[in-house]
Amino acid sequence: MEQEFASTLLERAVAQFASLPGIGRKTALRLVLHMLKQNEQSVTDFGEAIIKLRKEIRYCRMCHNISETEVCPICANPNRDASTICVVENVKDVMSIENTQQHHGLYHVLGGLISPMDGVGPQDIEIDSLVERVAGGTVGEVILALSATMEGDTTNFYIYRRLAPYPHVKITMLARGVSVGNEIEYTDELTLGRSILNRTEFKLS
Amino acid sequence: MEQEFASTLLERAVAQFASLPGIGRKTALRLVLHMLKQNEQSVTDFGEAIIKLRKEIRYCRMCHNISETEVCPICANPNRDASTICVVENVKDVMSIENTQQHHGLYHVLGGLISPMDGVGPQDIEIDSLVERVAGGTVGEVILALSATMEGDTTNFYIYRRLAPYPHVKITMLARGVSVGNEIEYTDELTLGRSILNRTEFKLS
Repeated sequence: MEQEFASTLLERAVAQFASLPGIGRKTALRLVLHMLKQNEQSVTDFGEAIIKLRKEIRYCRMCHNISETEVCPICANPNRDASTICVVENVKDVMSIENTQQHHGLYHVLGGLISPMDGVGPQDIEIDSLVERVAGGTVGEVILALSATMEGDTTNFYIYRRLAPYPHVKITMLARGVSVGNEIEYTDELTLGRSILNRTEFKLS
Repeated sequence: MEQEFASTLLERAVAQFASLPGIGRKTALRLVLHMLKQNEQSVTDFGEAIIKLRKEIRYCRMCHNISETEVCPICANPNRDASTICVVENVKDVMSIENTQQHHGLYHVLGGLISPMDGVGPQDIEIDSLVERVAGGTVGEVILALSATMEGDTTNFYIYRRLAPYPHVKITMLARGVSVGNEIEYTDELTLGRSILNRTEFKLS
């Protein structure tokens, strides 16, 4: 149901919020009315934080993670294993994997996945720069940590082919299996099949 | 779980989005990463639309609805029944009631409800100006169209007392009852009780 607003200022602000993913016009209106109740300074701060972010954000020259310095703190850390590169879709995935504290190497942020449906090709994401890093010669393992979706699989396959000229580099991917805490009954059959194929030795820890 | 971001610009933008009602840090990060993928101009437009809205928004001198003119199009419309005022909490409620096409009078937007828990007293919302409008003498009916919550009931009661000096003004409120399309089985008992008390004559229409 299209609603008409009494004010084009209101209309414009609602349209901007409604352009964000997962936010419809009703939620957008609720957010905008919330902002109208705030004082002018805090709303100005909100708007300026967004504008400044987009204008001044910098990415690490090595891994393309968001960074305030030319090389991000992870890439610059001499205690991290520079021979292992974990390939992820975006900045959020770097944070998730860092939170697990299980990866001690570096990252490579693609900035997207290959998706012919959405018009995203290999040239639109950071694959060439990954190949360059591998060609540098110090990389021993590339961990593909992409989503278990069609786009993730396509991107995995494409990277695998592009790295074929470097057979000394081990290419691994995240284990697929039953999620920790999930019941077998509610695990889909594809995942269940994979988790049987890739079963691991049972050990008392 | 508190996450640290690689950039204070990112941190600041995420904190701004997370300050909005119903938006947590995870959603805020998703929205901010979406904005980083947009071109600089459209992100600047977003930020400026918000700033401009807050700075330049005007409210109708009569009913306090959002308006671009001193008196809003509803108050200025000579075809509307100026003797009936529908009292609502906010601008969204005006739109909802306008969409029903069942109210042909004017509005009065309180800009909130009395809520001692949130520190909102009668002086913080547009009650004095409502009493002034009623004291003007041309008003015959005040329809209280506030939420069926404790805050709504408190505000109804307060307005009712403030309008007591004007006994010629009829004060009405929205009917409470079973929602259209709802099953009796799933209607709460308070509502069901009210809908029996306030039962209406069955008519074939």
